[in-house]
Amino acid sequence: MQRKYNFYAGPAILPLEVMKKAQDELLDFNGTGLSIMEISHRSKDFGQVIDNAVARAKILLNIPDHYSILFLQGGATLQFGMIPMNLLRGGRADYINTGAWATKAIKEARLFGDVHVAASSEDKNFSYIPRDPDLSSDARYVHLTSNETIGGIQYRDFPDTGNVPLVADMSSDIFSRQLDVSQFGLIYCGAQKNMGPAGVTMVIIRDDLMQSTRDDTTTMVNYRKLAAKNSMLNTPPCFAIYIVGLVLEWLEAQGGVAAMEERNEQKAAMIYDLIDASEFYRGTADPRDRSRMNVTFRLPSEELEQKFIQESTRAGLIGLKGHRSVGGCRASIYNAMPREGVKTLVGFMKEFQDQNQ
Amino acid sequence: MQRKYNFYAGPAILPLEVMKKAQDELLDFNGTGLSIMEISHRSKDFGQVIDNAVARAKILLNIPDHYSILFLQGGATLQFGMIPMNLLRGGRADYINTGAWATKAIKEARLFGDVHVAASSEDKNFSYIPRDPDLSSDARYVHLTSNETIGGIQYRDFPDTGNVPLVADMSSDIFSRQLDVSQFGLIYCGAQKNMGPAGVTMVIIRDDLMQSTRDDTTTMVNYRKLAAKNSMLNTPPCFAIYIVGLVLEWLEAQGGVAAMEERNEQKAAMIYDLIDASEFYRGTADPRDRSRMNVTFRLPSEELEQKFIQESTRAGLIGLKGHRSVGGCRASIYNAMPREGVKTLVGFMKEFQDQNQ
Repeated sequence: MQRKYNFYAGPAILPLEVMKKAQDELLDFNGTGLSIMEISHRSKDFGQVIDNAVARAKILLNIPDHYSILFLQGGATLQFGMIPMNLLRGGRADYINTGAWATKAIKEARLFGDVHVAASSEDKNFSYIPRDPDLSSDARYVHLTSNETIGGIQYRDFPDTGNVPLVADMSSDIFSRQLDVSQFGLIYCGAQKNMGPAGVTMVIIRDDLMQSTRDDTTTMVNYRKLAAKNSMLNTPPCFAIYIVGLVLEWLEAQGGVAAMEERNEQKAAMIYDLIDASEFYRGTADPRDRSRMNVTFRLPSEELEQKFIQESTRAGLIGLKGHRSVGGCRASIYNAMPREGVKTLVGFMKEFQDQNQ
Repeated sequence: MQRKYNFYAGPAILPLEVMKKAQDELLDFNGTGLSIMEISHRSKDFGQVIDNAVARAKILLNIPDHYSILFLQGGATLQFGMIPMNLLRGGRADYINTGAWATKAIKEARLFGDVHVAASSEDKNFSYIPRDPDLSSDARYVHLTSNETIGGIQYRDFPDTGNVPLVADMSSDIFSRQLDVSQFGLIYCGAQKNMGPAGVTMVIIRDDLMQSTRDDTTTMVNYRKLAAKNSMLNTPPCFAIYIVGLVLEWLEAQGGVAAMEERNEQKAAMIYDLIDASEFYRGTADPRDRSRMNVTFRLPSEELEQKFIQESTRAGLIGLKGHRSVGGCRASIYNAMPREGVKTLVGFMKEFQDQNQ
């Protein structure tokens, strides 16, 4: 078997060690004589699985005690609606528009209240992080997207929102760098980039924000009710949570988030350095705001881009095509992408440049 | 490894052949060099996975062309809310109350409109299916639960609701018996009993019912928008859908739903026959309405029930404890429970009776 390098924006590559462990115990989890997919979510064995995932997340991100950690279904897209359903409800919220994902969040929030776009980088095709947002004094919360997978831009420092809770979609960079969780009221992330398989979404929510949720929404979108049952108001996505736990154990073994941040900086720099030294490749994001998760770049022509994608695919480098809305090329290099994968990509890029410039 | 028999109500046992196939290809799906968890949901390979699951479901249940088949997240519990959010919206609906699951569905629906309980078996602790529901002439739909896992009762024939769409929660008996889908407006089911692992929910909806959904709900709860994107409005629970596809292929190889129905009848009869011939065991459901999925029974005393559960667990028969709300014992024998498992249980029950009566 020839394992390949998947640079697609998500679902993304997972650590090989995790996949092997899951494979080994797929028919017999923890000596139960059953698969992790076949045991009750109310069993002691699964209880340990979900408690472990919560505990690992808490340690890795140093999450304070007055926050709850939920594992939910529906992806970040359901959170786009759940956040205003729980926190906005007719009031006003500030949203920072940094690209496709922020735009989707804004669209959903507008169904539930007054949305003020406090800053936007739409003027330059979302190629930078806008500074100095025009924050409202009466906002219920401020929403931002910490990393935009399509534009390839990422926040380094987060705006100070004072007493107004900061809400962040971190679907594409959670666990990739150190974080001061106390800066945020709510953090959410679909698992399928840095945490595990598609089908589970982590929400980190400051407990006081759950007290104001109204009871006239359906139970499954009410943070307070979900938290009261430790994410087990109904049968949770057990297998996906199990894999998340294994990924977080792997992350600890790698040295935790600080070590991962350093490694991610290095991996990204390998590609950006090549781009900056080249007349052939051209980065599309403002260098100040370049993402260390999604490296977006163009080639001299669309024909060359097409050729680049065809030849890289043949070389076992999958998913380098940019998002259809912006074109070009993109290398998504989340936590589980090994340095070796990036090295292989950079080698391929150099060779392609030599042959085609 | 000693595989065990899991009689828990769900997540339930899955076909061993399916688990083995999933294990074999966990690191390399379909020659992609990646795990099914690691490939893009927009890839050709995953496209075939979801198309296959939809096609298999359609063939197995003989679903007419004017129905859509969706694979969603959030479990049946999210459907309890989504159904009235999409179909009720201020109008009236009839609900038949057959137990804990129907009661939950009723509670959620009341948030969104006028709910009329058209029939209930609460008077006898939900031990039977109520006949002759008092249907409203202006109901938007009639809702029922085809099988109640806690009370151990199951519909054999469904009420005629005329032009009013019949909506059914079939979480615990989908694919276990033949069905005339055209009798229903909407069928929904969490996967974790007869279809696959927890984390995916199938919805079969008649297309005309989606046209009336309003646009002021959040996108992820709007059937029309979900169907328009073939369940891929956002990243779907890829791995769970993949397993569902394998389970449905297995089901076809077993002879399809008709063969499964016959086998399920036989499996259930093995336990009920023992109960009926015994002075020791006592069935709790009305014999007319006994479930072929969840066999509920009592022993002469709670002490004996406790001993029964302890000794059966030691014998590798897991999850025979009745739901905490009703006590007693329960054997859940979904599609994937082999005849051999039921035979082992019946043997154990006879022996336990001999030793303790």
